[in-house]
Amino acid sequence: MGALKGKDIVSALDFRREDVEELFKLADHLREEMKDEGVLSYGKGKVLATVFLEPSTRTRLSFTYAMIRLGGTVIDFGPEAASSRAKGESLEDTMLMVDGYGPDVIVLRQRTPGFAAKAAEICKAPVINAGDGWNEHPTQALLDVYTIWRELGRVDGIKVGIMGDLKYGRTPSSLSYLLSKFNNVTIYYIAPDPLQIRDEVVEKVKGKVRYYKVGRPDEVIEELDVLYVTRLQKERFPSPEEYERLKGSYRIDRDFLMRFKHIPIILHPLPRIWELDTSVDALPQAKYFEQARNGMYVRAALLKEVLGV
Amino acid sequence: MGALKGKDIVSALDFRREDVEELFKLADHLREEMKDEGVLSYGKGKVLATVFLEPSTRTRLSFTYAMIRLGGTVIDFGPEAASSRAKGESLEDTMLMVDGYGPDVIVLRQRTPGFAAKAAEICKAPVINAGDGWNEHPTQALLDVYTIWRELGRVDGIKVGIMGDLKYGRTPSSLSYLLSKFNNVTIYYIAPDPLQIRDEVVEKVKGKVRYYKVGRPDEVIEELDVLYVTRLQKERFPSPEEYERLKGSYRIDRDFLMRFKHIPIILHPLPRIWELDTSVDALPQAKYFEQARNGMYVRAALLKEVLGV
Amino acid sequence: MGALKGKDIVSALDFRREDVEELFKLADHLREEMKDEGVLSYGKGKVLATVFLEPSTRTRLSFTYAMIRLGGTVIDFGPEAASSRAKGESLEDTMLMVDGYGPDVIVLRQRTPGFAAKAAEICKAPVINAGDGWNEHPTQALLDVYTIWRELGRVDGIKVGIMGDLKYGRTPSSLSYLLSKFNNVTIYYIAPDPLQIRDEVVEKVKGKVRYYKVGRPDEVIEELDVLYVTRLQKERFPSPEEYERLKGSYRIDRDFLMRFKHIPIILHPLPRIWELDTSVDALPQAKYFEQARNGMYVRAALLKEVLGV
Repeated sequence: MGALKGKDIVSALDFRREDVEELFKLADHLREEMKDEGVLSYGKGKVLATVFLEPSTRTRLSFTYAMIRLGGTVIDFGPEAASSRAKGESLEDTMLMVDGYGPDVIVLRQRTPGFAAKAAEICKAPVINAGDGWNEHPTQALLDVYTIWRELGRVDGIKVGIMGDLKYGRTPSSLSYLLSKFNNVTIYYIAPDPLQIRDEVVEKVKGKVRYYKVGRPDEVIEELDVLYVTRLQKERFPSPEEYERLKGSYRIDRDFLMRFKHIPIILHPLPRIWELDTSVDALPQAKYFEQARNGMYVRAALLKEVLGV
Repeated sequence: MGALKGKDIVSALDFRREDVEELFKLADHLREEMKDEGVLSYGKGKVLATVFLEPSTRTRLSFTYAMIRLGGTVIDFGPEAASSRAKGESLEDTMLMVDGYGPDVIVLRQRTPGFAAKAAEICKAPVINAGDGWNEHPTQALLDVYTIWRELGRVDGIKVGIMGDLKYGRTPSSLSYLLSKFNNVTIYYIAPDPLQIRDEVVEKVKGKVRYYKVGRPDEVIEELDVLYVTRLQKERFPSPEEYERLKGSYRIDRDFLMRFKHIPIILHPLPRIWELDTSVDALPQAKYFEQARNGMYVRAALLKEVLGV
Repeated sequence: MGALKGKDIVSALDFRREDVEELFKLADHLREEMKDEGVLSYGKGKVLATVFLEPSTRTRLSFTYAMIRLGGTVIDFGPEAASSRAKGESLEDTMLMVDGYGPDVIVLRQRTPGFAAKAAEICKAPVINAGDGWNEHPTQALLDVYTIWRELGRVDGIKVGIMGDLKYGRTPSSLSYLLSKFNNVTIYYIAPDPLQIRDEVVEKVKGKVRYYKVGRPDEVIEELDVLYVTRLQKERFPSPEEYERLKGSYRIDRDFLMRFKHIPIILHPLPRIWELDTSVDALPQAKYFEQARNGMYVRAALLKEVLGV
């Protein structure tokens, strides 16, 4: 342990396999400790600054719960509209300000792809990227793979279908990068052509995972250990018309799944809208609420390691 | 004591008279302890999740102060617009997420009448309803009756006028339900016909309180121990025109009150707009700011009991 | 010490010189203590209520960090739009409510010039004015003069140019008032006529500081120890047209400064938009980020003194 102390977490590519496995074990350990004690004392006297310049709940809340349950304190930047960013301040100045108050770690979400790296460079405190536009969301990948690891008992050799809006989503890229740290993983990218995975992502996992692009989920579902469903994020589409035209193609419900002999475990970063029907919730393979809960433990583990406490 | 441990608080009808009286005594006790010590330690290591999906200040702040002064921690969901609810997530999924992070108690306000009961069913943590549309607001009723109990020394046998928008308000229904737990209470519902109390409310208190519907406050004011004024909540009206047409009928000011030989104590859930004039503030019968302050103590008592600490 | 215990801080004129100097020394002392321990224990069991009814980040965050690092707790009112103020509640009622929950100190920003004094009158808790419209912002002046004191080693006898929107800004008035507590200070008010310093400000410093009104920064820059740049606050202009017409006149960049033999230290209350170019950031005279950081320490000192802990 100790390898992540003081480190920025900008990309899922930053993690080494051994770091990831240590984090998973630590998350399991913290889960037990929190069950017994509620609030621990590792984080005492430490301050987490959360800066969310895009709407978020799950990520912001799970980092907040994680820090509070570690015994630390959270100071939130507040909604962008109520901030001096409404006066036109640059992102750089905003981050210099937040960092200047001396938080022990910063969690940042904002719209500009690549700005998380810039923020990490500017700030003295370690910066954890909680989403930089369509680029990356490395801690989401951590909780995704942590859930796979807990549910299947392994990550090596698994077959994962990642479905939905792969082009504009940051979750598919970070998940691909983290899976590429393990051995012999196969990824099926399930999306219509205009929403297929970006070339830059494929470039980075080439030679490390086996991957296929497929057009529809029914083509591969019986092959899969994991079906990872994502939203068609309306706000990332070029136009509302394009959103309406494509959204019908990808929707998972109970009836669809029951057509297959083998049903993979179903994950989803949430929030879901229409693409994952509530009729799936009662199936034993539905693991997305568990996945969301896992986020709190693996983020607590990450905070503990980055803080070095 | 101990009867409320782990219980959801969805409706004012859920309380038994003895629970209510115990809460009032505990509120008085906590008031003394907080006077001496500021922040107590009953809530240490406990987390309250506040979820307010409608504008609120008084209720949210008084729960927050209550939990902090008990020594606990509060994690707020944040404004709806800054959350993933803006992406179209269902209320059910939102509550599953919040509950999944393991708060010890949840305080929820949202727009859908009856959803508080649904949330209580979904969530492992006890859910306290802080307003579900026009339906109920049981902790407001607690602080209303607590104020009456402190000011008059009793609740049995009192005569209460509830005035204003009784149809669309959640405060009049919860107050009626809580008063119905006491003996020999008389309620005068003072409102124009289109805003009179809903039938479902009358059904539930019938036989437990004596009640009358009256058209104007001057008809009954000398009968009353308590005049409970409420806002005509603009946002609940079918149209702005209907709001403008009716709002003139009900307005209490000093000159109006001074016409009577006997002036009852004046309560109001606040915020007030024009229906309760600031000229009333200096009268000894004006108890609405005291009432707001009482909210913090009685909510602290409720949290302590629900948490079982 | 002890002179500020329980005091409202409404205007920079409220401070005596000896209080200010004690605060600066205490700020330096707390800086050292916080370096060693992170979170101190002076504020244990104390609650700061922050009420920001105008967009703000720096002031709200620095007070929040200050209170947390003192070991206290902060309860934020939340964004105005999510509050019952959206229902039309008066400022007076809002403050009575906040004060009623018993915070140990209140920090208030709102739009109405002079309302901070009214709030101080209404509330039992000490009220710290964090900006009342174009009127005053006394703790900003504290951190400005604290930065001068640290950078120059003295305040007596210095020459300060205050530039930009002096008419609609609250920072220039509070800074002038605080500087007037020291000996032999010269102020150059650098602004076009329609944005020159308000007469009421000049009236209050007359005879205490030497002052000149000048039209352009290049006329005086070599005279100055400090150049204090301020934003032309768009939201305070009578019209967008007037904003566009005037904004071009006042802009500091590296090339401009390098024309002079002597460059004063450059301060700015931040956020900056276009009036202070990022090319200045690398100059040794650029002290505005240091100035922002200083805000946390001097506000911690002020909170400690007002709380009397």
